[in-house]
Amino acid sequence: MKHINIKTNSGESNIYLGEKLENLSKYLPQNKKVVIITDENILKLYSSQLQDFTIIQMGLGEKNKTIHSVEQIYGELIRKEVDRSGFIVGIGGGIVCDVAGFVASTYMRGISFGFVSTTLLSQVDASIGGKNGVNIKGYKNMVGVFAQPEFVICDITMLKTLDQKEFISGFAEIIKTAAIRSILLFDFLKKNSSGALNHDYNILEHIIFESAIIKAQVVQNDEKEAGERRILNFGHTFAHSIEKNFGILHGEAVAIGMVIATKISVKLGLLENNVAEEIKQLLINYHLPVDLNFNKNDIFNALLKDKKREGEKINLVLLKEIGNAIVQKVSVNQMEDIVNDLC
Amino acid sequence: MKHINIKTNSGESNIYLGEKLENLSKYLPQNKKVVIITDENILKLYSSQLQDFTIIQMGLGEKNKTIHSVEQIYGELIRKEVDRSGFIVGIGGGIVCDVAGFVASTYMRGISFGFVSTTLLSQVDASIGGKNGVNIKGYKNMVGVFAQPEFVICDITMLKTLDQKEFISGFAEIIKTAAIRSILLFDFLKKNSSGALNHDYNILEHIIFESAIIKAQVVQNDEKEAGERRILNFGHTFAHSIEKNFGILHGEAVAIGMVIATKISVKLGLLENNVAEEIKQLLINYHLPVDLNFNKNDIFNALLKDKKREGEKINLVLLKEIGNAIVQKVSVNQMEDIVNDLC
Repeated sequence: MKHINIKTNSGESNIYLGEKLENLSKYLPQNKKVVIITDENILKLYSSQLQDFTIIQMGLGEKNKTIHSVEQIYGELIRKEVDRSGFIVGIGGGIVCDVAGFVASTYMRGISFGFVSTTLLSQVDASIGGKNGVNIKGYKNMVGVFAQPEFVICDITMLKTLDQKEFISGFAEIIKTAAIRSILLFDFLKKNSSGALNHDYNILEHIIFESAIIKAQVVQNDEKEAGERRILNFGHTFAHSIEKNFGILHGEAVAIGMVIATKISVKLGLLENNVAEEIKQLLINYHLPVDLNFNKNDIFNALLKDKKREGEKINLVLLKEIGNAIVQKVSVNQMEDIVNDLC
Repeated sequence: MKHINIKTNSGESNIYLGEKLENLSKYLPQNKKVVIITDENILKLYSSQLQDFTIIQMGLGEKNKTIHSVEQIYGELIRKEVDRSGFIVGIGGGIVCDVAGFVASTYMRGISFGFVSTTLLSQVDASIGGKNGVNIKGYKNMVGVFAQPEFVICDITMLKTLDQKEFISGFAEIIKTAAIRSILLFDFLKKNSSGALNHDYNILEHIIFESAIIKAQVVQNDEKEAGERRILNFGHTFAHSIEKNFGILHGEAVAIGMVIATKISVKLGLLENNVAEEIKQLLINYHLPVDLNFNKNDIFNALLKDKKREGEKINLVLLKEIGNAIVQKVSVNQMEDIVNDLC
């Protein structure tokens, strides 16, 4: 088992990579009412390990990452008489953890919580860093707070039960992490795509650990995304609008978003074209989508709603080389030209 | 004008007592999109001073302090393309400020905000201290976060336009503050009830300043209510259940709650009976209610949902003398006996 510790202003978080769901109780506080928030898929697969817990079930998928779900869970917590001393555990992927984290950080102005992260995407990204939140009118993560889970258990064996499409989409965030911060991870991913896709435990453990520790370092330096943390949004400005408009998985949208972001990096003279092609090829090797027919207006309008926008400027994450990302302010007008040109 | 500065972990807040609504612009950031959240009453009375601002109107009264209102405002903010660099101003009483503060602290994971506090209750209590939130299923403030407004403008002249019942209810929190922390304020309130109730500016300014500075000190020492801040809940454990069950104003419920809390203090041998009577008399002098026919079961059940509950114990704020409050853990069973005995 590998352990990563993150210390930030909003609290401390411990990530246990390679720990097992069945050991969850070891991490729970004594003498507190513990409530698990999870979804139907997890309950079906792991009912025997969860039977002794108080459980709140939420709906499946991104369409349930809403204020409505949050409100229903608040009601359940009141009904179960959970007070300030209560403890919430989110068990699931990014959607469950985002909702559970937001509920825990706002219920009674914040109670303690932890995660069991069950998807590749959440093990390398969503469950690390203390961002949580829900969508509003389909716009991604428009509402949330920063609050650190006390623990994150990443049970790698649980990834075997993932839907293949879901599993594959997790590699998009891993490739993103390599692209912005680590040529070593990028090379490892190139050499080990077949092992990784075939659930080789050691290869997966290595990849998840490297991705998680890079994210943890970035978050520790800049929890509230005033500077460095912004690079984690590489590909995301486009991904959010693609995800909203085409209803594909987050990781799939991030893959396409990265292709667009590298194209812009080349166009602005920051990145060599062959490096952009190398990134695209790695995405293809991991069976990720790299193209899509866009409706320019939809994409552009969604960009205007992006959280990273500041007035008439959008903060765009661009690449100079593999492992070296920069944040550049691009005007809304310039953005419109770029979208017109690329799509 | 008087100025109070509060520094806490979640930020810094500046309270300007005696400042005027018409000077609001002086406190607003340059080059940021400013959105005002307020209600119908304020818009009717002060439309000329607000005509140049972008405004989101919320419904009147406690029944609109809900997740539903919050969600509607999120939608409006998206529609108005408010981004992370936006700034929200809540103009109104406790309800508007609680909702506006919660919206601002969660929209895009938190944008900056300030308040213009227009009721006596919010000037001495609700707008100070960084607590915000909404009710869930009628249970008070079950959801929220801690976040400090950048500024709070307390315009005393606006109190003249308050409904008399609303104005009077503000004195409950002032009497509470005196009861738990300041015999001097308590004596001043005794001597000046007629002037205060007749809107004597100097008397009101003195009372509001004393109350606000006591609250500011307590909050600065213990923002997240791990200890000292709990004394501010004197009378509130009961008030919340009374308010939920009888639909009276918050201040009115606090007055009755304080009478119950002093009775318990006497019963437990902490407080002299004549001091309890003195507090009751002061509440009567300010035309506040001190009695109500309770349904014991309703009160007791609501107590079980109280945020200050920790497992089988409730943190009850009791008085030893005027200006000297203590927090005592009372078991749920003992609480049931007390409610049965008093009601």
